[in-house]
Amino acid sequence: MEVYIASAAHTKFGKLENSLVSLILQAATEVITDSGISDFDAIFIGTQNPEELTGDGNIASIITDHLALTPTPAFRIETASSSGAAVFHIAYSYIASGRAKNVLVLAAEKMTDSKTARVTRILAEVIDKSERAAGVSMPALAAIITKYYMHKYRMSRDDLSLVAIKNHYNGSLNPRAHIQKVITFDDINNSKMIADPLRLYDCCPISDGAAACILTTDAFKKNVRIAGIGSATEHVPLRNREGITSFQATKSAAKTAYSMAGIMPKDINFAELHDAFTSFEIIDSEDVGFFEPGTGWKALNDGTTNIKGKLPINASGGLKAQGHPVGATGLAQIAELFWQMTGQAGERQVKNTRYGLCQNIGGLATNNFVTILEGI
Amino acid sequence: MEVYIASAAHTKFGKLENSLVSLILQAATEVITDSGISDFDAIFIGTQNPEELTGDGNIASIITDHLALTPTPAFRIETASSSGAAVFHIAYSYIASGRAKNVLVLAAEKMTDSKTARVTRILAEVIDKSERAAGVSMPALAAIITKYYMHKYRMSRDDLSLVAIKNHYNGSLNPRAHIQKVITFDDINNSKMIADPLRLYDCCPISDGAAACILTTDAFKKNVRIAGIGSATEHVPLRNREGITSFQATKSAAKTAYSMAGIMPKDINFAELHDAFTSFEIIDSEDVGFFEPGTGWKALNDGTTNIKGKLPINASGGLKAQGHPVGATGLAQIAELFWQMTGQAGERQVKNTRYGLCQNIGGLATNNFVTILEGI
Repeated sequence: MEVYIASAAHTKFGKLENSLVSLILQAATEVITDSGISDFDAIFIGTQNPEELTGDGNIASIITDHLALTPTPAFRIETASSSGAAVFHIAYSYIASGRAKNVLVLAAEKMTDSKTARVTRILAEVIDKSERAAGVSMPALAAIITKYYMHKYRMSRDDLSLVAIKNHYNGSLNPRAHIQKVITFDDINNSKMIADPLRLYDCCPISDGAAACILTTDAFKKNVRIAGIGSATEHVPLRNREGITSFQATKSAAKTAYSMAGIMPKDINFAELHDAFTSFEIIDSEDVGFFEPGTGWKALNDGTTNIKGKLPINASGGLKAQGHPVGATGLAQIAELFWQMTGQAGERQVKNTRYGLCQNIGGLATNNFVTILEGI
Repeated sequence: MEVYIASAAHTKFGKLENSLVSLILQAATEVITDSGISDFDAIFIGTQNPEELTGDGNIASIITDHLALTPTPAFRIETASSSGAAVFHIAYSYIASGRAKNVLVLAAEKMTDSKTARVTRILAEVIDKSERAAGVSMPALAAIITKYYMHKYRMSRDDLSLVAIKNHYNGSLNPRAHIQKVITFDDINNSKMIADPLRLYDCCPISDGAAACILTTDAFKKNVRIAGIGSATEHVPLRNREGITSFQATKSAAKTAYSMAGIMPKDINFAELHDAFTSFEIIDSEDVGFFEPGTGWKALNDGTTNIKGKLPINASGGLKAQGHPVGATGLAQIAELFWQMTGQAGERQVKNTRYGLCQNIGGLATNNFVTILEGI
């Protein structure tokens, strides 16, 4: 059964005054208004940890009630920081099972209500317990991966910086991005060291935001089709993995998604990749098959992945500049693909939009998702 | 597409030494061994709040890794205390969409690691924020409902006690029940008042436990078929509801489930209903259409719902005696139906098992599920 996106959107990302619930309602209202669809067979919401971040339990019921959509069935889906992609995949399966015609898909996180140290501790709950006991945080593990990649593939500090420079430039064109400023090599080199070699500008910000999407089996005038979806899991402790300079869960997810779509990596026109840390965009771009292992950073040097390049990556600004309200991110990537495919991306509009791919990482790359959309 | 249960089981419920992860592995191992199926297209886990109860985030990845089943796709589903039913419904939709042949469904909660006061606070996070601000807890809201039902339908304290007496008797026959002792009217009347009129023996215990189930599209020798499923949401604040002596979300869910199954309430042979509080079993039995509003308690008086009665309810002991590890309960109900339908229920075996129904409440009845299985 073919499943289409009737509308997709996300709120502005950033340190926002709105509550979690009000952010979700804002995103939902935007897609309901845009699509003219307001009657749903089910509602799905992806979010990583509203219980600890804002004290909101039972979020599926609460949101359905606030939307005045009871008694519509509602479910919350969670796979750590890929919850926004997971909820999209689950909603796809639900509608593809023939049980529904229209479903509302929501995703959100409100992170800035707590102090940074508490947020860092909450985010670290997704790391293996034995590694946590050793005191590591997400940036610490990402730093190990980055250092090893740099050493193995002879990538320089400046090569890595190109990810941040490109994505901050893209973010400066995106009115919904958390950070809308262009940065330089000097800005990066002078920024605070978070976990060697990762500096402040190598890490995504802590953001608030929500995303929404309406899936339908009715062919709709602004047509975007779900061509392929895939997801996969990986050993949680870093020490148990076959290698750490690529993410097996992304590779497996991509394989499934390409197979379902019946296309190859070379057919993809543009992509949104999970750059929670600058090095991750490079690794991701290799894992989804765009570039050979160890060569992803070269595509930044030659401009291939710029907005005007042959294969734009993170035209939105990515997690790096657009922000990373963890549970919202995967669905916000879908919204970016939808906006690009329907010519609504403004100054950051890319040229060729037939096939778009997005990739979302859960935890330290333990539950990753790849989604391929086709603009038709 | 027809979907079958190849196996279902749950661990003993109680105050257990095992960790959350080890409980889940125990339940998973039991269904894998019983069915002979160990290769899954996806894994689903339902749990309400492992982040706060045991500090376990990213549970879908962690469990998949511990089962040595990476890179299998894995998802966590949450709808408060109906997470164990929600995960079953989502897994059903996933397999019915044609994307999978065999899926592993898991559900669990580990509640006794924290002190009772903290658990009560965590459980209260599912209540409307304005009601929470007024200081209510789950038992307080249940007490309001119970008092009003007793007044409206002239149900006595002794009538209410019959639920606890029946379910504790059933639990005494169930080696996996949290509480395996017979109780009397005196035990109830002498037990601590929790929230007037609810005494200790009107409330389910705080339990640890896990459940597991394997869904398959292959007709299997111990055949149990999923005949009907339905779920629905309800206004979260009690004050916004049309009435409080019945739960609209159960009624809507039941309507959907019966419609899908093509049967009527009178066709159901036995049921597991969500008796987190004694009065809830009575309300539930009316909401799923077994009895007219205000008459459910009479069926206890005449023995209709005893194990040997015409329509056994909570042969397992129910939440009241078997226990209520919140996220596990909905899937444990499925396991009880499966055991009954395959003649594995031992001393608590009911006679007629063609159609079994289970009903699971999320939050204060804001996200409820009804599932109908057919033994064939």
